[in-house]
Amino acid sequence: MTRRFVDQLRDGDQLDEIFLATDKQLRVNRKGAQYVQLMLRDRTGGISARLWNAGDHVFRSFDDGDFVLAEGKVQLFEGSLQVILTHVERAEAEKVELTDFMPHTEHDVGKLTERLRGYLLRLSNPHLRALAECFLMDDAFVRGFVACPAGVKLHHAYVGGLLEHTVTMMDIADRLLPFYPGTDRDLVLMGVFLHDAGKVRELTYRRSFGYSDEGQLVGHIAIGLEMLTEKAADVPDLTGEPVPRELLLRLKHMVLSHHGTLEHGSPRVPMTPEAMLLHAIDLMDTRMHMVLRDVKEDRNSQTAWTPYNPTLQRRFYKGGGNGDLYSPAMESYD
Amino acid sequence: MTRRFVDQLRDGDQLDEIFLATDKQLRVNRKGAQYVQLMLRDRTGGISARLWNAGDHVFRSFDDGDFVLAEGKVQLFEGSLQVILTHVERAEAEKVELTDFMPHTEHDVGKLTERLRGYLLRLSNPHLRALAECFLMDDAFVRGFVACPAGVKLHHAYVGGLLEHTVTMMDIADRLLPFYPGTDRDLVLMGVFLHDAGKVRELTYRRSFGYSDEGQLVGHIAIGLEMLTEKAADVPDLTGEPVPRELLLRLKHMVLSHHGTLEHGSPRVPMTPEAMLLHAIDLMDTRMHMVLRDVKEDRNSQTAWTPYNPTLQRRFYKGGGNGDLYSPAMESYD
Amino acid sequence: MTRRFVDQLRDGDQLDEIFLATDKQLRVNRKGAQYVQLMLRDRTGGISARLWNAGDHVFRSFDDGDFVLAEGKVQLFEGSLQVILTHVERAEAEKVELTDFMPHTEHDVGKLTERLRGYLLRLSNPHLRALAECFLMDDAFVRGFVACPAGVKLHHAYVGGLLEHTVTMMDIADRLLPFYPGTDRDLVLMGVFLHDAGKVRELTYRRSFGYSDEGQLVGHIAIGLEMLTEKAADVPDLTGEPVPRELLLRLKHMVLSHHGTLEHGSPRVPMTPEAMLLHAIDLMDTRMHMVLRDVKEDRNSQTAWTPYNPTLQRRFYKGGGNGDLYSPAMESYD
Amino acid sequence: MTRRFVDQLRDGDQLDEIFLATDKQLRVNRKGAQYVQLMLRDRTGGISARLWNAGDHVFRSFDDGDFVLAEGKVQLFEGSLQVILTHVERAEAEKVELTDFMPHTEHDVGKLTERLRGYLLRLSNPHLRALAECFLMDDAFVRGFVACPAGVKLHHAYVGGLLEHTVTMMDIADRLLPFYPGTDRDLVLMGVFLHDAGKVRELTYRRSFGYSDEGQLVGHIAIGLEMLTEKAADVPDLTGEPVPRELLLRLKHMVLSHHGTLEHGSPRVPMTPEAMLLHAIDLMDTRMHMVLRDVKEDRNSQTAWTPYNPTLQRRFYKGGGNGDLYSPAMESYD
Amino acid sequence: MTRRFVDQLRDGDQLDEIFLATDKQLRVNRKGAQYVQLMLRDRTGGISARLWNAGDHVFRSFDDGDFVLAEGKVQLFEGSLQVILTHVERAEAEKVELTDFMPHTEHDVGKLTERLRGYLLRLSNPHLRALAECFLMDDAFVRGFVACPAGVKLHHAYVGGLLEHTVTMMDIADRLLPFYPGTDRDLVLMGVFLHDAGKVRELTYRRSFGYSDEGQLVGHIAIGLEMLTEKAADVPDLTGEPVPRELLLRLKHMVLSHHGTLEHGSPRVPMTPEAMLLHAIDLMDTRMHMVLRDVKEDRNSQTAWTPYNPTLQRRFYKGGGNGDLYSPAMESYD
Amino acid sequence: MTRRFVDQLRDGDQLDEIFLATDKQLRVNRKGAQYVQLMLRDRTGGISARLWNAGDHVFRSFDDGDFVLAEGKVQLFEGSLQVILTHVERAEAEKVELTDFMPHTEHDVGKLTERLRGYLLRLSNPHLRALAECFLMDDAFVRGFVACPAGVKLHHAYVGGLLEHTVTMMDIADRLLPFYPGTDRDLVLMGVFLHDAGKVRELTYRRSFGYSDEGQLVGHIAIGLEMLTEKAADVPDLTGEPVPRELLLRLKHMVLSHHGTLEHGSPRVPMTPEAMLLHAIDLMDTRMHMVLRDVKEDRNSQTAWTPYNPTLQRRFYKGGGNGDLYSPAMESYD
Repeated sequence: MTRRFVDQLRDGDQLDEIFLATDKQLRVNRKGAQYVQLMLRDRTGGISARLWNAGDHVFRSFDDGDFVLAEGKVQLFEGSLQVILTHVERAEAEKVELTDFMPHTEHDVGKLTERLRGYLLRLSNPHLRALAECFLMDDAFVRGFVACPAGVKLHHAYVGGLLEHTVTMMDIADRLLPFYPGTDRDLVLMGVFLHDAGKVRELTYRRSFGYSDEGQLVGHIAIGLEMLTEKAADVPDLTGEPVPRELLLRLKHMVLSHHGTLEHGSPRVPMTPEAMLLHAIDLMDTRMHMVLRDVKEDRNSQTAWTPYNPTLQRRFYKGGGNGDLYSPAMESYD
Repeated sequence: MTRRFVDQLRDGDQLDEIFLATDKQLRVNRKGAQYVQLMLRDRTGGISARLWNAGDHVFRSFDDGDFVLAEGKVQLFEGSLQVILTHVERAEAEKVELTDFMPHTEHDVGKLTERLRGYLLRLSNPHLRALAECFLMDDAFVRGFVACPAGVKLHHAYVGGLLEHTVTMMDIADRLLPFYPGTDRDLVLMGVFLHDAGKVRELTYRRSFGYSDEGQLVGHIAIGLEMLTEKAADVPDLTGEPVPRELLLRLKHMVLSHHGTLEHGSPRVPMTPEAMLLHAIDLMDTRMHMVLRDVKEDRNSQTAWTPYNPTLQRRFYKGGGNGDLYSPAMESYD
Repeated sequence: MTRRFVDQLRDGDQLDEIFLATDKQLRVNRKGAQYVQLMLRDRTGGISARLWNAGDHVFRSFDDGDFVLAEGKVQLFEGSLQVILTHVERAEAEKVELTDFMPHTEHDVGKLTERLRGYLLRLSNPHLRALAECFLMDDAFVRGFVACPAGVKLHHAYVGGLLEHTVTMMDIADRLLPFYPGTDRDLVLMGVFLHDAGKVRELTYRRSFGYSDEGQLVGHIAIGLEMLTEKAADVPDLTGEPVPRELLLRLKHMVLSHHGTLEHGSPRVPMTPEAMLLHAIDLMDTRMHMVLRDVKEDRNSQTAWTPYNPTLQRRFYKGGGNGDLYSPAMESYD
Repeated sequence: MTRRFVDQLRDGDQLDEIFLATDKQLRVNRKGAQYVQLMLRDRTGGISARLWNAGDHVFRSFDDGDFVLAEGKVQLFEGSLQVILTHVERAEAEKVELTDFMPHTEHDVGKLTERLRGYLLRLSNPHLRALAECFLMDDAFVRGFVACPAGVKLHHAYVGGLLEHTVTMMDIADRLLPFYPGTDRDLVLMGVFLHDAGKVRELTYRRSFGYSDEGQLVGHIAIGLEMLTEKAADVPDLTGEPVPRELLLRLKHMVLSHHGTLEHGSPRVPMTPEAMLLHAIDLMDTRMHMVLRDVKEDRNSQTAWTPYNPTLQRRFYKGGGNGDLYSPAMESYD
Repeated sequence: MTRRFVDQLRDGDQLDEIFLATDKQLRVNRKGAQYVQLMLRDRTGGISARLWNAGDHVFRSFDDGDFVLAEGKVQLFEGSLQVILTHVERAEAEKVELTDFMPHTEHDVGKLTERLRGYLLRLSNPHLRALAECFLMDDAFVRGFVACPAGVKLHHAYVGGLLEHTVTMMDIADRLLPFYPGTDRDLVLMGVFLHDAGKVRELTYRRSFGYSDEGQLVGHIAIGLEMLTEKAADVPDLTGEPVPRELLLRLKHMVLSHHGTLEHGSPRVPMTPEAMLLHAIDLMDTRMHMVLRDVKEDRNSQTAWTPYNPTLQRRFYKGGGNGDLYSPAMESYD
Repeated sequence: MTRRFVDQLRDGDQLDEIFLATDKQLRVNRKGAQYVQLMLRDRTGGISARLWNAGDHVFRSFDDGDFVLAEGKVQLFEGSLQVILTHVERAEAEKVELTDFMPHTEHDVGKLTERLRGYLLRLSNPHLRALAECFLMDDAFVRGFVACPAGVKLHHAYVGGLLEHTVTMMDIADRLLPFYPGTDRDLVLMGVFLHDAGKVRELTYRRSFGYSDEGQLVGHIAIGLEMLTEKAADVPDLTGEPVPRELLLRLKHMVLSHHGTLEHGSPRVPMTPEAMLLHAIDLMDTRMHMVLRDVKEDRNSQTAWTPYNPTLQRRFYKGGGNGDLYSPAMESYD
């Protein structure tokens, strides 16, 4: 049976569905009776729910962040929909389709993964190709890499976002490299692959997106560097010789400097053509993703401008606006 | 009949007046009955109003930003005044006295306009005088210039504000020029006239103050430059010769650089005595306007300080405070 | 009888206690009856209180910031505790134990004062020792110095905080000086004593913490300098000769530059070894105080991180977190 | 006869060639005799020259910046080459091959121009295509556009540099647009064409590279905007209708915002997808040009690093360095 | 006999004049003979001088910074003038006309002083008028105030500069105050008088301009505050009552905040109308002084631009330039 | 035989000593004869030397950076000492006492090393103690750590500087920890040990101080992190269990954040008490080292101020100055 998502609920609907429970509270109404209030969430949004005459027993039967089976009825109250529950109980996470609860890339993860492998396994430089293989042979890493978002909120904030962002950047690098002879193709592609790889451990993304403690204390740049050092140590098993010192140095430098400036958290600024190009492509792709998403997702037709984007500190122009016509001078001036 | 303004309404008043409608909502009360809620506004403030048992038909009969004729009764509810409406309908904008709905300069716009013309028509430099005439002959421009505020919120944010700010700066320049020989009087006065002229198209000010799309995307500096180039092309019709190249360059430079620094949106910093003086007078007049307005308008006698001014990131001292007396050390220390 | 503090009140308690009254309002309920609402506060927190059927007479009988005797009963309402008052009247400040109403250093003020005097009266330099005596002989100053907090919110924001911060810094300086030969011990200790002494007049701390008008307009650095100049003029009465010009200059420089940079409000940067060391110790002690307080006071065991600290613009890691475990990659990756 | 360039001169060579004269001085030797000293320059460098026993007459016979016919002999003096002149006289600029005196793009200007025209004349949007035609029909503009450098020193600082930079960016945009659906291809290409077009008037590039007065006072962004407004006014002659208001606004916005931030001289930040992409491509191409040029042009094989680049405030890594080997720890550590 | 200044010396002149000696060196020529080399300076410039065959005895007979009587002959050497001395000896400072050695205001110091006294003695506020009198009665202060420059290099860097700058600002304030009702005239004038008064001790200006140790360590803002506090203590002797607390606080605040921002060395930003106006006038007058001086003093007619001004980080446009004509596009484009 | 250092050479001395050769040039004198010029350096300074009538053969017989045996005579020329060589030849580095050529800590390296080992081997935490042992057992690391400077120019720029800086910070931490309960002693000491350990590979210090390529491209923070990860992997060999995850995370965080802010190259800001304290002690010790060194090393008694320190952008006050006395106002004013 198809799931009914939060954004499909209507006044009067009967409800019997699994949700992510958050903001659980035990409250007392005006008559002194206890009740439990919580939010029921899935990837489309959240709805408030109440179970009347429920006390400590129910309150302790599940935790914030658990999945719960919720039964009850949807009704309109003071202009908003809410759920009056008849029953709520903890559901096993195993029975849950996680993708119902977290936003997901619109692209096919399998195909993206194939393109990633294609780029990496066709690298000319045998050391870099072997290094890539060491990463691809690590199942846990790959599992994380294809699931991880590229960010918690800023851009590509959905399951598969890191993979999508990485493969798009590889495609772009592939097309731009002919313009910049003197820039090493293999290094650029490998740098693109690894630049955000540390996010696999920086972020948490099992039920919701957040930062791990390691992510906060160490950050994806240093984590990525550590992963690179670790895998580079495995390369001689494949090639019989260590990754050449200068090659490895150049690759580390790319991971370290890809944010472009110290203020943005890179302890080194780009000092090679490859590091420069990696930073430029990364900046372009994250910014283009933000502006196009803001314009596309804004459904408010009353204004020609998107809501304020706090990261970029601006609104974007959607167009079609008649804002100018408000000016009396304008009316006769044009 | 004199209008009763929002800030004159009292508990029990019968109401039959035109207001600007905003924040329109269709809501449902606890018994499930629909009602319409909206804000009624004029230039003195706003009051919440409800029309009970009114549904979609009424809700759709007017838009946010429309003028409405509102009939009903004022009453006190939970410590605040509100209006219980008996009738609400869209009013024709033509019948409305716009100045009732927007704040207005306290000065006489006619006299301010005369002083502006006086300065401009007495310029010694025939090219600049002719250029000024080209602007003054453009009725649409003049209509906008005398109505436009100088800002949406920051300073001179009222109808006629641009005119008042401009003429005050001309008066100031007139008095300061003798101190700075080597500074061209005609250029300074013309630069003052044009520095914010682009606001005529940057801002919207028919019913409320805001930014036009052109204002957001291009900004008053570039708009002003465009207006200047356009009018300069008309000068030969009056004088028989083009505006001398260097003179025009110096004037453009003044408009471009009047914000003083790149970070404040001027793509060039002042590099002539005239541009330097224009920037200094503009900065002084806008800041003095802000501090004097904040001190004057603050009616809170409980504190010696005005509310926080987010533009200047500070509070101002109104004085008469006894704040010091709170300190025990102080009591015996002085 | 021991005082029952706000954080000890329980549903059903009878109340007969003195509180600091704030947020006083005269309101009207749905039936049109007036009532008085206010907050009752002490150093442990605040609780909302209502006196039903009380009008203008009660409302005017005390002011915000007064101490009041409150009688009534504590009850739970919509999940929160509130007080239904039966009687409220202004209480004399003289009868009030001020320390019940303001947070206080955990150290013994008497002992801290003795350590301060010990350091100062054992200074080798006779001019500086005499200068210190001039401060210590000023009873009003000393009364303020031992009561004043070191800040309103940032750090050591409690009665005695300035004293505690100062003595701790002296202890630290005492231990560090052997590492930096060429740094004058007496100057460092005297500079530590005086660096924040101006806070005695900058802050208000009789009933709550705030800034005096002088504090806002002049600031503790300039106030401290003024106090230093004034006391230095008294030194010849003790020693028979003026404080040597260079010595006084070096001390003034330390007070002036102790914030380290112009952006932080010091009009001079440290340019002597003693000023440099003073700034370094001050920075260390204020920051260590903040991080240790945030970690210690945070009772939220659900997260490994403290709430956001706006001054330092970061959260602190409390540890013991399992945040990392949320990541699916992590589970198998480690 | 082929020109012998400055970097081809050898000790003992007879000289009879045209050079650009700079740094002209009239000096007196130890014996009191006057002589004329000057620098002889072409696009490969400069060499010092002296004409003994030459006085005021010769000194005044040409100006700095003139072309001169120089006859004499090259000789080694204190380790450097210099020219001892027998004759020097002013040469007519008409006889001079300007490209001998200024660096030149390595690409074929004719082919670049064809590619530029190809992109522009194949635009789908009839208004933008007509606008492009208005520019291309302006012979003086085109003559400037194909000759102008893209910068005085920073990047593409050679004759044809603006054209090369523009066409490269169009090629790049052409390849990147498929990645960013929702971004208008015609607007992006037209924005790329116009973003630096104002440099045609901002820079001077007849005999050496510099800034015109208009360039200093107004800058290429405002000049470009003026050129755009002027040409847009001609469009109706071709299409019978004005350029749509919003389309023109979006294009102006792109020119205005292409530096990305206010601090870099753009009075507006990019607020449309097209403006965002234009800025990203411009930043990438200018930076890649700089790093690749610095690496390629550095002939110093003693160090693995290029000279300090003051614009980007860093050195670049050329590689092949053994710098690490200097560390004693390193020797045994690896 | 009229002094011959450095800028009046010609080849062949006999010299017998007093100069300020600087850059003294004892050197050895190629034949091993010792000689003394030094610079002879007055307010118009400096000239190099040598005394052949002079050893340690002469070298030690005067110090850098002394006045010396120099006898010898001016001659041209390698294109520059120098002096071959026959005799040099230390001269008594008492015999020296100091104004020959330091630049001086072009205004009449007596008249400026009278205007200053006029403003101050006509203040309406009796407290401020008495405070002004306390300053004016202090002869040492007045002697310093009329001699002191307003800066070492930036602006008004000549004897009498502080007085000239102060009186000009008073004149300007006098004319601007009518535009800003709500701004206290007496406070503004008194604030202008005192804002830079601390420079009397911050700077040294007996033989050349520099900073005193107190100036470096404490700075003119804190010195000025100290002077204000000291004089305010004398007011009761004149008026029988102390300067009202709030009035004095407002005046201190003006001195403290007149640089406008913390980064510029003011530990407080302007928070009263009077402090705001003082800062604005100060900024305007110092900047206008700089731009007009740079334009006026630049004698280089080869360029339309002044030399780079490092304080304001820009060149100024003198005009009359033909810079644009260098552009080939331009030639046909206009 | 004791070495005669550069700063001990006198006019007329015969020379037969080993120096570091730099700035080698092959030049031609006025008569056309070739000669070799070079600088001879040791840790006390450098002296210019010439070998007349020496051509390409000698020039190529050694490289810049080689040690050379130099024979010749010291003589005074134009006021400076120089060496006229009779013979120069490459010397074997093995025969050279390296400490003659590089500045060295004044402390006993053996004792410093013992103190370092003492702190580390007495750590209570068995995991951290074992980790420390892993570093101490690595002979190559220890050899680098005791030789490495703490910086190239800024502070502790001498052989043994890193060790001295580290041990001093441990001593300081030891004394400060009692003031900050809640701060883990073992973590702080271990963090101090490792914070700059990456400099062992970042810097080069065999013959002169500089940066390795790895140092430039990766930097000591990331290098240190890599060393920490590597050694942590060896800990289980000693303890039988891995370093606890959170403990290692906290230690990595300390290394990463010890510069305090992103702008200073730390990709993370301090977020634990231990990281905060490490940063504060590091900042204090480096700054105190700079100011005390500048004051101590400045031998210029003509001024009360040290030369400009470009890192800290200020001069330091040495004291004893009479600078104030230059002011005429001052003379009578005090």
